[in-house]
Amino acid sequence: MNSKIKIGMFGLGCVGQGLYEVLNKSTGFRADIERIVVKNPDKKRPVNPSLISYDKNDILNNPDIDVVVELIDDPQSAYEIVKTALMHGKHVVTANKKMLAHHFEELYQLQQKYGVSLLYEGSSCGSIPIIRTLEEYFDNEPIQSLEGIFNGTTNYILSKMTQDRIGYAEALRQAQELGFAESDPTNDVEGYDAKYKALIMCWHAFGLSVHPDQVLNLGIDLLGSEDMDYLREKELKLKLTPVVKRLGANNLVAFVLPQFVSKKNPIYYVEQEFNAVSLEARYSGQQFFQGRGAGSLPTGAAVLSDLSALSYGYKYEYKKYRQNEHLTFTNQASIKVYVRFRHSEEIKDLKFTEIEQSYSSPGYQYIIGRILLEELLEKRNSLHQKDIFLALSEGGSESIVLQQDLSVTKEKLVESMEI
Amino acid sequence: MNSKIKIGMFGLGCVGQGLYEVLNKSTGFRADIERIVVKNPDKKRPVNPSLISYDKNDILNNPDIDVVVELIDDPQSAYEIVKTALMHGKHVVTANKKMLAHHFEELYQLQQKYGVSLLYEGSSCGSIPIIRTLEEYFDNEPIQSLEGIFNGTTNYILSKMTQDRIGYAEALRQAQELGFAESDPTNDVEGYDAKYKALIMCWHAFGLSVHPDQVLNLGIDLLGSEDMDYLREKELKLKLTPVVKRLGANNLVAFVLPQFVSKKNPIYYVEQEFNAVSLEARYSGQQFFQGRGAGSLPTGAAVLSDLSALSYGYKYEYKKYRQNEHLTFTNQASIKVYVRFRHSEEIKDLKFTEIEQSYSSPGYQYIIGRILLEELLEKRNSLHQKDIFLALSEGGSESIVLQQDLSVTKEKLVESMEI
Repeated sequence: MNSKIKIGMFGLGCVGQGLYEVLNKSTGFRADIERIVVKNPDKKRPVNPSLISYDKNDILNNPDIDVVVELIDDPQSAYEIVKTALMHGKHVVTANKKMLAHHFEELYQLQQKYGVSLLYEGSSCGSIPIIRTLEEYFDNEPIQSLEGIFNGTTNYILSKMTQDRIGYAEALRQAQELGFAESDPTNDVEGYDAKYKALIMCWHAFGLSVHPDQVLNLGIDLLGSEDMDYLREKELKLKLTPVVKRLGANNLVAFVLPQFVSKKNPIYYVEQEFNAVSLEARYSGQQFFQGRGAGSLPTGAAVLSDLSALSYGYKYEYKKYRQNEHLTFTNQASIKVYVRFRHSEEIKDLKFTEIEQSYSSPGYQYIIGRILLEELLEKRNSLHQKDIFLALSEGGSESIVLQQDLSVTKEKLVESMEI
Repeated sequence: MNSKIKIGMFGLGCVGQGLYEVLNKSTGFRADIERIVVKNPDKKRPVNPSLISYDKNDILNNPDIDVVVELIDDPQSAYEIVKTALMHGKHVVTANKKMLAHHFEELYQLQQKYGVSLLYEGSSCGSIPIIRTLEEYFDNEPIQSLEGIFNGTTNYILSKMTQDRIGYAEALRQAQELGFAESDPTNDVEGYDAKYKALIMCWHAFGLSVHPDQVLNLGIDLLGSEDMDYLREKELKLKLTPVVKRLGANNLVAFVLPQFVSKKNPIYYVEQEFNAVSLEARYSGQQFFQGRGAGSLPTGAAVLSDLSALSYGYKYEYKKYRQNEHLTFTNQASIKVYVRFRHSEEIKDLKFTEIEQSYSSPGYQYIIGRILLEELLEKRNSLHQKDIFLALSEGGSESIVLQQDLSVTKEKLVESMEI
């Protein structure tokens, strides 16, 4: 392209306003916002009113607009906008992780079919340039594992709970007051948001597209004061970490769980709303990236960077996806977890493949042991309805083992335990 | 290019062998090594002997070779090879930071004149993709500051001294035994290596080329046991950190000094031979990257990534350099330093603009105060001949002040102090 691009923008919320601001301040990059389509005609907008429209066709059917920037909340509408824009031959920049994680295959095919580019650096860990780095820098190097802190809201809540010794509900309330958490925090605190981001990175790191429903996610919403006491005593911190990891020759596991993290792990030190990506590459070894994971300007800057790349004709080549390492996604792997509960009968249906430690007191009990991912995925919703907190135990991402590699003695299922 | 590239390689040391290994293992990227030119005919080489040559013209005058990979130690020969290769229309990948830092302007012009590409991700912080990230991701966002741990040898020595409570000489000896330090360690321990890397990043972050002679560097070779005791007492660590920072509207300072680092700073936790880059961008805020800074495979992987980029026709656009933010490099700025010495007369010629603390004991003395960078640069060599250890004090990179902004009272020079 390499000329001044003309932008049609959907949404003018936090990120949209951030983009508007950085675009106006940018001296090196030339782009015009031609139109901004928003939903609510009653809201005051801090932009030139002549730019505003309420009809999506003012962008989608406008032949002058060559780039669509999609920054709305609703994933279904976002999907329809992005799809239509690509089919109309427009390049698209989006930050909508849920939409991307659910429609990868189709969006990939549309890019090929219509010869257009879809960029989404802003979707994953805000200002950390992780998609571009995976795509352009680690394009010929196998990635062994990918984990980190992909959700700023939960990291803010966990930091507050640790530093101020307050409970989950109070920390959530403070985060909501400051605008770090939404009124319905489900998407963040139960790990959905982090999962979508992990799956977006997974395409670029491992070339594999996995449907979100196949992937376990449990969050921090059932974290109790006993769990915080346990962490304090062991000098550990809790972080909500997606883990994507290659196992054996061609298996890949992925899940999102709170994780006990020791001081040896660089993510231990990542606090407040900061995000981090920790990846292990075959030759380069351990790589660690930290930056602001959300916020108006940091995410706006990520979108600006995508727009600048478009002006140079950039598109993701999906190199790992095309190289196809023949990886197979599996939940038939065991992980080492800490499970805190109140009464034994609450977990009587949960099958452990191994129990390492168990603790019981009048108020609560916990078990540290191994469970298969498929077992946890199957029972996820029933677990989540009880007062049970489950986390990956310390060094847990290193201890993931394929079911086929579990020794026979360890494979004996421990059912209906009497503790 | 997007076809199989044909490589002529100079040097087959640590990085060269790493590249040879990762190239052979790579499945996605297609490249042939046509020729490897080495100096010493007596050394055994772990490669196909028919590839080896001792005549540089076997590569430089070979029309079949389109990419030259320069991985030799000697900066002067490297400069001649790179220059000739570019003039012969060949693309070049190099990891030679000293050569790059001394010849930027000419190498930039040669790329333009001959329409070829010169890539050097491997020159700076090994496996951390910092050049590409600055060039492609922060291309339209002003960078405020850049610092970090750019030299693995000194970080290994400092980690050893802290963890094992051993002296500098012993830690250096151990590093040399393990191959982490060279027999003549000057380049690493006095901060030259870190300075070259900082200046390479400086072109891409700030668009400014600064000659290495203009930039102060002091290292860790005069670090004494009293200094280590001081650090332990204050719960600080010492890291050798280049600092490049924008001051006021259009001034830029740069220097390399050991720095006192507190637990609040993510580089506190970077140990052993790991490197880190910490940058502050105007919209994205604080960004932090950590990875292996040296070693055969990590640096080999960085060179591989450059080769892969070449196969897609990639070249640095030097966007910041072309945008030209009209920055001026200056040493007329004051920094806050810790200066440890044995006798007052040793520092009687050193002009402080302010003294904050002074300490005296029979064995040693120290001062914490402000000095102008130009004063330190002028007296660098005479300081370095005495048993004086100088470091940026804690939070020092935040306390850099342009001379013109120093208040009049503070500007009064404190000369020939009697302590």
